[in-house]
Amino acid sequence: MDSVTSLEWQDGVLVLLDQTLLPGQITYRVLGTVEQVRDAIRDMVVRGAPAIGVAAAYGMALAARQAPSDGFPAFYAALDSAGHMLALSRPTAVNLSWAIDRMLAKSRACSELPVDFILTELEQEAIAIHQEDIAINRAIGSNLLSLVQPGDTILTHCNAGALATAGYGTALSVFFVALEQGIELKAFIDETRPRLQGARLTAFELVQSGIDATLVSDNMAAVVMSQAKIQAVIVGCDRIAANGDTANKIGTFGLSILARHFNIPFYIAAPTPTIDWDCPSGHDIPIEERSGEEITMINGERIAPAGVKTYNPSFDVTPAAHISAIVTERGIVRPPFAENLAKIREPWSGPKKN
Amino acid sequence: MDSVTSLEWQDGVLVLLDQTLLPGQITYRVLGTVEQVRDAIRDMVVRGAPAIGVAAAYGMALAARQAPSDGFPAFYAALDSAGHMLALSRPTAVNLSWAIDRMLAKSRACSELPVDFILTELEQEAIAIHQEDIAINRAIGSNLLSLVQPGDTILTHCNAGALATAGYGTALSVFFVALEQGIELKAFIDETRPRLQGARLTAFELVQSGIDATLVSDNMAAVVMSQAKIQAVIVGCDRIAANGDTANKIGTFGLSILARHFNIPFYIAAPTPTIDWDCPSGHDIPIEERSGEEITMINGERIAPAGVKTYNPSFDVTPAAHISAIVTERGIVRPPFAENLAKIREPWSGPKKN
Repeated sequence: MDSVTSLEWQDGVLVLLDQTLLPGQITYRVLGTVEQVRDAIRDMVVRGAPAIGVAAAYGMALAARQAPSDGFPAFYAALDSAGHMLALSRPTAVNLSWAIDRMLAKSRACSELPVDFILTELEQEAIAIHQEDIAINRAIGSNLLSLVQPGDTILTHCNAGALATAGYGTALSVFFVALEQGIELKAFIDETRPRLQGARLTAFELVQSGIDATLVSDNMAAVVMSQAKIQAVIVGCDRIAANGDTANKIGTFGLSILARHFNIPFYIAAPTPTIDWDCPSGHDIPIEERSGEEITMINGERIAPAGVKTYNPSFDVTPAAHISAIVTERGIVRPPFAENLAKIREPWSGPKKN
Repeated sequence: MDSVTSLEWQDGVLVLLDQTLLPGQITYRVLGTVEQVRDAIRDMVVRGAPAIGVAAAYGMALAARQAPSDGFPAFYAALDSAGHMLALSRPTAVNLSWAIDRMLAKSRACSELPVDFILTELEQEAIAIHQEDIAINRAIGSNLLSLVQPGDTILTHCNAGALATAGYGTALSVFFVALEQGIELKAFIDETRPRLQGARLTAFELVQSGIDATLVSDNMAAVVMSQAKIQAVIVGCDRIAANGDTANKIGTFGLSILARHFNIPFYIAAPTPTIDWDCPSGHDIPIEERSGEEITMINGERIAPAGVKTYNPSFDVTPAAHISAIVTERGIVRPPFAENLAKIREPWSGPKKN
C-alpha cells in the first residue's frame, strides 16, 4: 500500500508525521516521553481517533520507561497517573481511553514480573495495538467495498484516512482497498472547517495515491448531492454509543440530515474499539469545544473582526436513526443498532474500565 | 443609522468601500469609468445583489458620459454595449440586469433630449435607484421584525447587510431596524466559505453596530439548530424565480434543508427587483462557477495539495417548498409563491427586457 504513514515506532521512540503542517510541509516529530505524546495529541500533530489510540499506547510504553522501577505498586501508580494525564488531551475519542486501559490491563497482568520485563511486554502490546489497527482498517475497507459499486463517487468529511490511523484509514480504507483490487472509486471531500482536515489531509492522501478527488466547501454538500453526484457518504468517527449514536467531526450531523433528504446511504466506518459500551446514547458523549481562534484566524491571519463571539464545538453527534450502517472489521452492522451492535461485542473489544 | 456604507456617489464619481479587504482594512476605491465599475463588480470589491444593482446604475451613468454625444443612435448604441459588458460581470444577480435595463429604458424615454440633458437624467435615475434601495431595505426590515420576537436569535448566511446594499441590508435590516426601536435581537453568523463573507462582512457590520453576534463555521448550523438556539433563519438572495425558487449564496440550500428538519422558519429577505418574472423556476437561474482557488487558497496561502480537483458553484437554489416566507418591501409573501408573488407585482418592479 502506498498511502502515507502517520506514525512509526523506531528503536524505542515514537515518530509522528506533523499533520498540522500538511499539505505544505512533511515534517516528522520524534517523541521520547509521555508528556511529548500528550502535547502532540492535544495540539493535533497526530489526530484521528485510531491514530490517537495507537499514539497513546506508545505514550504509555514511554511512560512505563519513565516510571519508578522499584516495585510494581510505585510503577503502576506512575503509569496510571500518566494514563489520566494522557486521557485529558482529547476528551471525545474513545480509542484514547481504550488504548490507555488496555496498556494498564497489560501491566496488571504482568505485575509478578520484574519491571524491566513489564517494559518489554508493554512495548510489545503497543506494537500489537498498532498492527491490529492496520489489519482492522483493511477489513473495514473490504467490508465498505461490498457496499458500493465500481465507479461510484463517495463523499467524505474530515480525515478518516491513513493519517487518522496506523494505515489505510477507516472511511478512506475503501479507496485504498479498491485501488489494490483495481476498482475505481471517486471522492468528493468536504474541506471540513475550521481546521480543514479534508482539504489539508484527505485531499493530500487521495491525491498522493492517485485517486480522483474533488474538494468542496462544507456548505456545497447539498448541491453536490442534489446533482446526483454522490452514491454514498462514508465518514469515520470518534465514538459510537451502545445505541448507535455516533460522535464525529463537526459537520457530520448536518451531512447526515442532507443524506437522508436525498436518500443517499450514510455509512460510519469504525473499528470496534470505537464503540463505547459504557455510553448508552449520544447524550452521554462529551463534546470537546476548542478555541474560537480556530474560526477567527486562518494561517495566522484574522478573518473576522475583533469583538465577534464564536462557538466552536469540535464534534457533533449523528443520531443512530440517520445511519444506514456501521461498518466494522467484524462486519456490517445494520439498524436496529442497540441490538445488532451488541452481537459483534466480544470481551476484548470494549474499553476495560477499572 | 450607524451601519457601514458600501457605496457613495460623490461629485460624479462612484466611491466604493473595498469589501475584499474587510475586516482588516477600510479602503475606498474611486471609479470614474464603466470599465472600472465592471471590474469592481467582477472582483467583488462591491458585492451583494442590491449593491451590485446600484453600482451598475452608476456604472451606466458613467458609461453615458463616455459615450459619443453626436446624436442619440450612436449614444444609445454605446450605452447598450456598456450594459452588455456590465451584465457579464456577475451572471446570477438579477438586480444587475434590472438596473441596467432601467437605465437603458430611462435613456430611451429621453431620446428626444440633447445628450447633455440625458446625462443629467441618467445620473438622477441612478441616484433614485440608490435612494429607493435604502427605503426598500428599511421597509423589509420592518416587515421582518413583525415575524420575530424580542430576544430571538436569528441565523444568517453570507452578507445581506448594509454592505450588500445601499444601506440597512436585506436580511440584516431586521437587526438595524430593531436596534432603532430598542429591540434586542441576537445573531448567529455562518462564516460562508469559500469567500467568508459572513466572517468578514456580516460579523464586521453587526459588531460595528453593537449587536450580539456569534460566528460559526457553516458546518455547525445543524448543531446550533438542534440546541434550540435559533428561532429563525433569515437570508438575502440574488434572484427569485416566479415560482418562489430562490438563488442565494452557496450553502443556503443546505441550510434550508436543516431548517425544515428542525422546524425553524426560513425567511428570504428580498427587494421586489430581485424577483425575475421572466424566470419560471430555479432551473432557469444561471449559477456562476468561480475559480477553484477560492477553495484551495486562503489569504494567498495554499491549504490543499496541488492536483486536487475543485467544484466551486458560487450560488445554489433553494426550492420554494423550503421557504416559509419571502419578505419584501411590499409585504410578507407566503406560499403558494407562484400565486402570491404575482399579487405584489407592479409594472415597474420587474426587469424590463427589450
